[in-house]
Amino acid sequence: MRLFSSVNDVQDVDALAKEALALKASPFAYQQLGKNKTICLVFLNPSLRTRLSTQKAAQNLGMNVIVLNIDKEGWALELQDGAVMNGTSVEHIKDAAAVMGEYADIIGLRSFPGLKDRDEDYSEAIFNKFVKYCNVPVVSLESATRHPLQSLADLVTIEEFKTKLRPKVVLTWAPHIKALPQAVPNSFAEWMCKANVDFVITHPEGYELNRDFTQGATITNDQDEALIDADFVYVKNWSAYELYGKVLPGNDDWMLTLDKLKATNNAKVMHCLPVRRNVELSDEVLDSESSVVIHEAGNRVWAAQAVLKQMLESL
Amino acid sequence: MRLFSSVNDVQDVDALAKEALALKASPFAYQQLGKNKTICLVFLNPSLRTRLSTQKAAQNLGMNVIVLNIDKEGWALELQDGAVMNGTSVEHIKDAAAVMGEYADIIGLRSFPGLKDRDEDYSEAIFNKFVKYCNVPVVSLESATRHPLQSLADLVTIEEFKTKLRPKVVLTWAPHIKALPQAVPNSFAEWMCKANVDFVITHPEGYELNRDFTQGATITNDQDEALIDADFVYVKNWSAYELYGKVLPGNDDWMLTLDKLKATNNAKVMHCLPVRRNVELSDEVLDSESSVVIHEAGNRVWAAQAVLKQMLESL
Amino acid sequence: MRLFSSVNDVQDVDALAKEALALKASPFAYQQLGKNKTICLVFLNPSLRTRLSTQKAAQNLGMNVIVLNIDKEGWALELQDGAVMNGTSVEHIKDAAAVMGEYADIIGLRSFPGLKDRDEDYSEAIFNKFVKYCNVPVVSLESATRHPLQSLADLVTIEEFKTKLRPKVVLTWAPHIKALPQAVPNSFAEWMCKANVDFVITHPEGYELNRDFTQGATITNDQDEALIDADFVYVKNWSAYELYGKVLPGNDDWMLTLDKLKATNNAKVMHCLPVRRNVELSDEVLDSESSVVIHEAGNRVWAAQAVLKQMLESL
Repeated sequence: MRLFSSVNDVQDVDALAKEALALKASPFAYQQLGKNKTICLVFLNPSLRTRLSTQKAAQNLGMNVIVLNIDKEGWALELQDGAVMNGTSVEHIKDAAAVMGEYADIIGLRSFPGLKDRDEDYSEAIFNKFVKYCNVPVVSLESATRHPLQSLADLVTIEEFKTKLRPKVVLTWAPHIKALPQAVPNSFAEWMCKANVDFVITHPEGYELNRDFTQGATITNDQDEALIDADFVYVKNWSAYELYGKVLPGNDDWMLTLDKLKATNNAKVMHCLPVRRNVELSDEVLDSESSVVIHEAGNRVWAAQAVLKQMLESL
Repeated sequence: MRLFSSVNDVQDVDALAKEALALKASPFAYQQLGKNKTICLVFLNPSLRTRLSTQKAAQNLGMNVIVLNIDKEGWALELQDGAVMNGTSVEHIKDAAAVMGEYADIIGLRSFPGLKDRDEDYSEAIFNKFVKYCNVPVVSLESATRHPLQSLADLVTIEEFKTKLRPKVVLTWAPHIKALPQAVPNSFAEWMCKANVDFVITHPEGYELNRDFTQGATITNDQDEALIDADFVYVKNWSAYELYGKVLPGNDDWMLTLDKLKATNNAKVMHCLPVRRNVELSDEVLDSESSVVIHEAGNRVWAAQAVLKQMLESL
Repeated sequence: MRLFSSVNDVQDVDALAKEALALKASPFAYQQLGKNKTICLVFLNPSLRTRLSTQKAAQNLGMNVIVLNIDKEGWALELQDGAVMNGTSVEHIKDAAAVMGEYADIIGLRSFPGLKDRDEDYSEAIFNKFVKYCNVPVVSLESATRHPLQSLADLVTIEEFKTKLRPKVVLTWAPHIKALPQAVPNSFAEWMCKANVDFVITHPEGYELNRDFTQGATITNDQDEALIDADFVYVKNWSAYELYGKVLPGNDDWMLTLDKLKATNNAKVMHCLPVRRNVELSDEVLDSESSVVIHEAGNRVWAAQAVLKQMLESL
């Protein structure tokens, strides 16, 4: 594997999930693979789970890890081709990416969307320029429109907890006070559409996701109906795609509560974290036996390790 | 050892100090112990000595080290249980702690007091919540009311330099321009009260420490008297406990000088650093043969390594 | 080698460049040398290439690496001897340096000039105090007036690309919108003056460098003339030395273009990066076959590794 930016970069989704579970059983079985290999984790935005789990995964594989918060430790990046750089940006992304490729065998990159210009965000300008110029394999640590390591960890978690061959998985929109990216729901949707699950998305009117990510999903504005007999409920806020990056008024009653969960098939509740307690989900849900959010976060290690293992094997 | 938050977590203080000195003699003797183990050092506040010495100690033991300045690299933490998180905090400490416990075998945590609400600070709310939810052993890298790795390094330093079985150790308040926590003097006091020393605390009126930490100490407002025949003088500023977090006017003459040291038994001068030169201590003291502050800082490695070794042995 | 702060610390410049190229051919040949040794990379200013390449070099040698952005993670440093520290600085550099020396076998330090007080900058006050007090070998990661790891990488790059025994190397001033240090041109000049090259410096009037660094160089204000038959063109902006730290009006036509390159002997174009595209150099130059700037940045690893290897051998 030379690139991990979406589910489309994965040849066999089921096999990758199984590899993650195998690594979870034997975390240190491939330490020779990463010996004398360096991964550079580059962050243009904050990170907790992604940073720690990917660093852990790489170290489990015997790699050296260099973490660079480039927004704080490095130089402000110029993104426009042909720019006359007489402003505040100090280095062009094409030069920064090419240089980092000189120092790393694999690069991980996190870059959030601006949520101002939909075309720019959905063109994945930053991520794709980085990939183009760095000349080494790149793993997405969440880009403008996708968060594939999260989605792989989510799939692994569903594999572990499912009690039937084809569970019902419901992605439900949740309230939030800030405008959040669509990266997690986009990514979760495109992974679920390739998995052996019945996949339902429910959200208030106006929060339709880009249809490129939801082919094959059942989509409804009726949360109550969607939750019926669900085996997994994936809770997540996102801002509007049509009225791009906007938070629409109302919809506070979309918070997931224990009461709403009664209609499900004793569903496991998932969330990528961080979660706004008592806004997106109630405390009573998060602190109940139904919640698997911490376990799910733990699976981020094995998802990252499976991807890095395949990348190391391709070097 | 599953927790290192105060002297009360230590079964045998003398044995731990001796272990630190043994590790100083053979720093790399236990590298197999930490193999494939990860410590996550989490900072909510700045750090120099603690960060470097603990990272070094962990690496000496063969551990992988992940450093996270969570205040800068991660998300703003919510501390109140039951909060409706519609404000600026992004993640609840109970979730962040639980997640980090998924990625680490041991966690080190630094969190300073707010110095606004004494009850809150002295309840060690942040530190204790972290311990409660992270589910792995935790070592304090300085909490609201204690700095036990510093105190252990101080004890080790006294062991190295003492010339009699039971030396006289004087903790003397020193001036400062800012309101500082009571963590270092609290912690030093409770360690000294368990050590084989004659322990005297001297400070201006109004700077009384919480009595829970000073049981067994002689306490006086007369600095000159306290210093007589001292073998060790430990210099430190702290803000008031009664008028909580306040700097009281006056007391500039409490700065330690070479002249004041004449009354001592050729005492060694200690300080946890960073030190405000010519405010807390004069240059002439810090740059004299009497000062052991750099040596003392060096001992932070062996203190941390002794604690981490015992934690690794308990995993 | 106990100190690497300038070319004057190097016994045999050619031999060091050859060592760098040997390490490039066998990056992991000396991993036992750095085992259980710790380098602490201390940054008072941002860094991309220097941070990553030095970290990589140290890891190639088997060292443990601790990175400290002391300006962000640590305490504000006091630089004046004898200061009464009742202001904003928290720790004196002499104490911070001495403490770090307790935790590191080698220290790397980056500290930029203030560009306000020429005497202070050119006395290398910060760097030299650090060296004086830390008590372990120190490698400059760029100081107020020099950037020797960059210069060694530049020399290595010239060695790789030269097609004649004694190539012509031209350092040409380039426009910029900000006042930049003289560290890179100073350092490049003093390394080139010791190398087997014909060395020419060209810059607009008013941008004369300190003559201490340029002994043996041909210096001219005529860029066109300087470029004739050049084998290497090293492009770099710097602020004025005489009108210290100033950007003088005009000189925008000093940007290097493909057209100007025609006069050269098919010269390779070098730059230390980061580069302001279309201000210092045109896109067409940077994106042409003539540019070796990324390759040059890659050589930073081998330059650092050669220096660290010699330091480790002297421990």
